[in-house]
Amino acid sequence: MSNQPNAWILTIGNEIINGVITDTNRETISRELRSVGITVKGMSSVGDDPALIADALEMAMNRSRIVIVSGGLGPTEDDKTAASVASFLGVNLRLDQEQLERIEARFRQWGRPMAPTNAKQALFPEGSIPIPNDHGTAPGFRIERNGSVAMFFPGVPRELVRMLRERGLPAIVERFGVSEQVFRTRTLHVYGLSESKLGEILADVAHDEDDYHLAFLPRFPIIRLRMDARGQTAEHADRIIENKQQVLTERISENIISDNGRSMEQVVLGLLESKGLTLALAESITGGMIGEMVTRVAGSSRVFMGSVVSYSNDMKSSILGVSESTILAYGAVSHQCAREMAEGARVAGNAGVGLSVTGIAGPDGGTPDKPVGTVFLGLATPDTTITRKHLLPGLRDWVRTLAAMQALDLLRRYLLELRIHGEEE
Amino acid sequence: MSNQPNAWILTIGNEIINGVITDTNRETISRELRSVGITVKGMSSVGDDPALIADALEMAMNRSRIVIVSGGLGPTEDDKTAASVASFLGVNLRLDQEQLERIEARFRQWGRPMAPTNAKQALFPEGSIPIPNDHGTAPGFRIERNGSVAMFFPGVPRELVRMLRERGLPAIVERFGVSEQVFRTRTLHVYGLSESKLGEILADVAHDEDDYHLAFLPRFPIIRLRMDARGQTAEHADRIIENKQQVLTERISENIISDNGRSMEQVVLGLLESKGLTLALAESITGGMIGEMVTRVAGSSRVFMGSVVSYSNDMKSSILGVSESTILAYGAVSHQCAREMAEGARVAGNAGVGLSVTGIAGPDGGTPDKPVGTVFLGLATPDTTITRKHLLPGLRDWVRTLAAMQALDLLRRYLLELRIHGEEE
Repeated sequence: MSNQPNAWILTIGNEIINGVITDTNRETISRELRSVGITVKGMSSVGDDPALIADALEMAMNRSRIVIVSGGLGPTEDDKTAASVASFLGVNLRLDQEQLERIEARFRQWGRPMAPTNAKQALFPEGSIPIPNDHGTAPGFRIERNGSVAMFFPGVPRELVRMLRERGLPAIVERFGVSEQVFRTRTLHVYGLSESKLGEILADVAHDEDDYHLAFLPRFPIIRLRMDARGQTAEHADRIIENKQQVLTERISENIISDNGRSMEQVVLGLLESKGLTLALAESITGGMIGEMVTRVAGSSRVFMGSVVSYSNDMKSSILGVSESTILAYGAVSHQCAREMAEGARVAGNAGVGLSVTGIAGPDGGTPDKPVGTVFLGLATPDTTITRKHLLPGLRDWVRTLAAMQALDLLRRYLLELRIHGEEE
Repeated sequence: MSNQPNAWILTIGNEIINGVITDTNRETISRELRSVGITVKGMSSVGDDPALIADALEMAMNRSRIVIVSGGLGPTEDDKTAASVASFLGVNLRLDQEQLERIEARFRQWGRPMAPTNAKQALFPEGSIPIPNDHGTAPGFRIERNGSVAMFFPGVPRELVRMLRERGLPAIVERFGVSEQVFRTRTLHVYGLSESKLGEILADVAHDEDDYHLAFLPRFPIIRLRMDARGQTAEHADRIIENKQQVLTERISENIISDNGRSMEQVVLGLLESKGLTLALAESITGGMIGEMVTRVAGSSRVFMGSVVSYSNDMKSSILGVSESTILAYGAVSHQCAREMAEGARVAGNAGVGLSVTGIAGPDGGTPDKPVGTVFLGLATPDTTITRKHLLPGLRDWVRTLAAMQALDLLRRYLLELRIHGEEE
């Protein structure tokens, strides 16, 4: 998928060089460039040192016509990118009044005083073109030398990706006239299959083609399948994507959560709302994680009533009405307790649907009969209550995250009338 | 912090360049080098292309006396590192009989037939020294040119790290006589100061010294301050750290959450346990986030009773006992509601302490009087109930995350008898 000018990615920061953080900006930039048909030739990283930054920039600009740089644009002493670039170009820094006012306006909007050091973020190498930042304080900038363009962005991942999409890529497309072809991308969110299982199922359809690429992007416990297609026209590219998606849907339809970037919680809330149902939770092992996930979604209050995080058995009984004899006879981690928790949540939240989860996250508390990872889910609806048992792999964090996702998937499958996994009572 | 030869890290693979995987080998190699006192000067990555590999190797060996390379040593067509290095050095590949036998023995041990392509892994550039792999099939190798050493390892993370520790680092220490000194590191977790504010407060003590380095590592909303020191003896390095920490403590003691890697929630749970107190929560705006944070900590059930996530006003009244007249008169986002929620949580959870948070996360729901970001916290103890108002910056995610952290910090400050921020009723 090339013929276009290629690109070099340069990331700057002592924390990268010292191995203190995982530098994910490189892969983000690479994927964004790919979406407009630009191939990455190489990547490099150096610390916040002017001589090394200048050297790395020279290496990159000599090798690629497009250089994307991130990092070192913050307000502190450590952030040396702009000054290093000025010295590399043999020019001075100049204060950009417009960008300074934007930074000041941002602090006013936050209701916080601007530290004097933030003014430094409005200093740019002479002859460079500022790139406004609508998502944070540090603007970027762009330079050109011997036909190569270098663009500098802040290292904060969410600011970087938005600035790149909104400002960087359009400027590159305009400057280099790349991508007379049309690029389309679509991402499926997949849950419930391991990466290796998915790899097996899709082995014969996962190869690169001239106009199509399928990438596996795991973000535990979701795997994103990203389809990139290139066509002579938008219709052409769209048709490639549609055809490829149809093949994927034939193989793994029940595991595809969404094809439009929506998360599990967004999908479940949407399904509930379309059916006029409200939701209440009873969480034990997940400690509030499901409520937190659901309430990430703006407008969730239309559907979500609340959650009773009943970590103590006391709260299971007093608020959810789980009978003490149930806990005595079967334990708090049991089909019976999950059932009474789900029904109790439905009543406590005055909701259409009650969803519960109880289990053993570890490291302690496991028994031969109910080892760490044992989880019971309950779903109480206007018609019936069902429960399911799962044995989830991994350590505490994994077990909890999987338990939350498995509970939401149980509800999704119920609402879509799909097969429901797990061991019945 | 140098005087030692520094190092360059080069990682090779199309999957890195295309942004399909997160390349964590770079940080692994950096940390391993640091453990023997070697600083990394830069990093680069290229795809599986002989010309680009040769170019990147030349760049690296011209800049550092130690070059660590990973990737491209597998058995497939794609793996081109050994051939690329041979061509870079102007030598042929030779088959190493001893390494071939080791690879064959490994397959016998696994009970699997060896594919003919695996024999390729016993081909090395003439003049190079093989590095045996006791953990997989691909051996590495080492070359030397103009006083610089380059070592090549497989890209499989667990093989890489073991070979580096067992074979690579000892060879480097022997070759360059590095690391007679002792390295110590300590990380402070800081909350409640912005990065730029912290930069100002510490401006005069944040400079690099010959035997000391202070790094700012923001992980929103926490900033980690990492101190690295180098000494002739362990006592010497420890003393440098102690002295530096004392200076930091004088400036920002109330904002230092821990100096041993413990998170806010771990610190708060520890304080509660040491005072024999239990905790219950009433969460609205945070939707369960505080409960989720607290229950990440194994053993939290000794202290944490549970949380009532009262997203609907109905649940605030029915379970927490917030009076309907309070909500009518002051609204659910108010000092009065936060007070009754905290007291209600304490009763509902049968706990020593009740902590509540209610607010407006946005994007909708703000008013001129109570804009998005308005948050009220409540703390009910055996002695008294206090409430505080905050106006938190940012979008929905930020507001919620800050609200959770601010609530835990309120409790921390109460337990430590520190000043408590925010607007009183």
